Amino acid sequence: MHTDLTADLVVALDIGGTKIAGALVDGGGAIRVRAQRPTPAREDGETVMRAVEAVIAELAGSRLWDAAGAVGIGSAGPVDASAGTVSPVNVPGWRGFPLVERVHRAAGGRPVTLVGDGVAMTAAEHWLGAARGHDNALCLVVSTGVGGGLVLGGRVHAGPTGNAGHIGHISVDLDGDPCPCGGRGCVERIASGPHIARRAVENGWLPGPDGDTSAAAVAASARAGDPVAVASFERAAQALAAGIAATATLVEIDIAVIGGGVAGAGEVLFAPLRRSLRDYATLSFVRALEVAPALTGTDAGLLGAAAAVSPRHREGAGVWG
Amino acid sequence: MHTDLTADLVVALDIGGTKIAGALVDGGGAIRVRAQRPTPAREDGETVMRAVEAVIAELAGSRLWDAAGAVGIGSAGPVDASAGTVSPVNVPGWRGFPLVERVHRAAGGRPVTLVGDGVAMTAAEHWLGAARGHDNALCLVVSTGVGGGLVLGGRVHAGPTGNAGHIGHISVDLDGDPCPCGGRGCVERIASGPHIARRAVENGWLPGPDGDTSAAAVAASARAGDPVAVASFERAAQALAAGIAATATLVEIDIAVIGGGVAGAGEVLFAPLRRSLRDYATLSFVRALEVAPALTGTDAGLLGAAAAVSPRHREGAGVWG
Repeated sequence: MHTDLTADLVVALDIGGTKIAGALVDGGGAIRVRAQRPTPAREDGETVMRAVEAVIAELAGSRLWDAAGAVGIGSAGPVDASAGTVSPVNVPGWRGFPLVERVHRAAGGRPVTLVGDGVAMTAAEHWLGAARGHDNALCLVVSTGVGGGLVLGGRVHAGPTGNAGHIGHISVDLDGDPCPCGGRGCVERIASGPHIARRAVENGWLPGPDGDTSAAAVAASARAGDPVAVASFERAAQALAAGIAATATLVEIDIAVIGGGVAGAGEVLFAPLRRSLRDYATLSFVRALEVAPALTGTDAGLLGAAAAVSPRHREGAGVWG
Repeated sequence: MHTDLTADLVVALDIGGTKIAGALVDGGGAIRVRAQRPTPAREDGETVMRAVEAVIAELAGSRLWDAAGAVGIGSAGPVDASAGTVSPVNVPGWRGFPLVERVHRAAGGRPVTLVGDGVAMTAAEHWLGAARGHDNALCLVVSTGVGGGLVLGGRVHAGPTGNAGHIGHISVDLDGDPCPCGGRGCVERIASGPHIARRAVENGWLPGPDGDTSAAAVAASARAGDPVAVASFERAAQALAAGIAATATLVEIDIAVIGGGVAGAGEVLFAPLRRSLRDYATLSFVRALEVAPALTGTDAGLLGAAAAVSPRHREGAGVWG
């Protein structure tokens, strides 16, 4: 029997501080058409919107466009799904920008669903990745920042404004360093790539001859046994473990899925993370918590945006608003 | 028009380390019949169960018994709602004790729903207290320990095992003092009544002529302006604020309701708590978070156990298992 997957075709937009990606995604999770523009992140809001419109226009040139239904957007946060606006930290021209209304018009009046990028990645992992089959999961993106999203009771839990799962800005060190968000001791302030690199350098780690001081370079040193590099990843793992354990203790998840550039460090991150979880996930109902690397890769944002509007994920899930 | 509230009559059991309370609760939240026994907490498991059976037998002697439908249990934790067992920390004779099956038999074959006591208190506050009308709420009990529960999307979120909302054992100080749970820097280790009192004494606070070194005595000193007593409550408030802000950032709640003996300290706790929340609840979608004292008082456990089985709360809520 032949299934016409274009019957579930949707428009997906993944909006970040570096690029604006768009796609037509079918009901099987295949990306059928792609378009992309750099984000003119330092320009005014209308210029950024024109880049979004250019992506949509390119998708609209596809012969599949007419078959595509609703539009899903995963955007850098904060977002406000209830107001339909976005205020991405790295796109200063957009503050309370009415992205939902503008995309609705640019996409020929199609219905539009907006979620934060952490929620989108979570929807992708639940649909097609490591959280598949798990009714209660936390998915994290550990990269320049630390984001996340939740699956509760079998459905993505976006929260009223589409920001739920924002694990990067929970405090795991109440007397800790100030965070740009205004808080102290946030997970992101300890575990993001730039902070892993900063801490290594502050403690005497020296880059190789290429001068690369990225978290990836620190990871390479850690793999080679450099104790300062190892310690910086261990500290990041400890903060992630405290945050993941807190989440499990609060909402009962059984798996934490970790993606993003820093997760690319592999066992340099995952081994101390599993050890630290034993220190913080102590109650009977959280002790069996699994940790797994994300599977959806660089298309997580697009696939998650698609999942956000796909009937099979939205069914009964009022959380999509 | 006359509404027959006994049509929604349920059996409620509130099981703690000190007492076992039972009631028949009607659809309006009125307690129609009560029974109570001390918990023989140091005895063997069967002796504890006989006290539960005595409470049920006393309720069964009421002329309303036959009208009562299902049984709801709110129990000191940890509980395992999926297995139907309880292992209350303060009742060592019960480890994995099959309370659901035993109550089912003792109550004439009625269906039984089990939740943790923090979840029960939350169900009560959502039904009849300060969380009424809020679709997303965290309710806390701050007393000898720190417990809690969540309302998400308009329904109590108990989690698969009935323990969700366990805010007392999330770490807000990843390098902090060891907690009996095995973790470090748990909210309970900083904010519970015994720890408020311990910290005050350690920092030089002296009790009055009556020798009372309880958190209530420290609260009285704080109200009279004693700086060490004030500081101990401020530290507790800071830990609670970090935990409440973490919860709001993770699942988007708009109110935190606080009950339990320590909440009786009033503004000695609530004023620094509101101040500290501004330090930790910083993201746009959590800044408007309210804090309110609980309203359901000492009957919260019974009312919450009743709410756990009442059709008006259970409707559509698979979380009740």
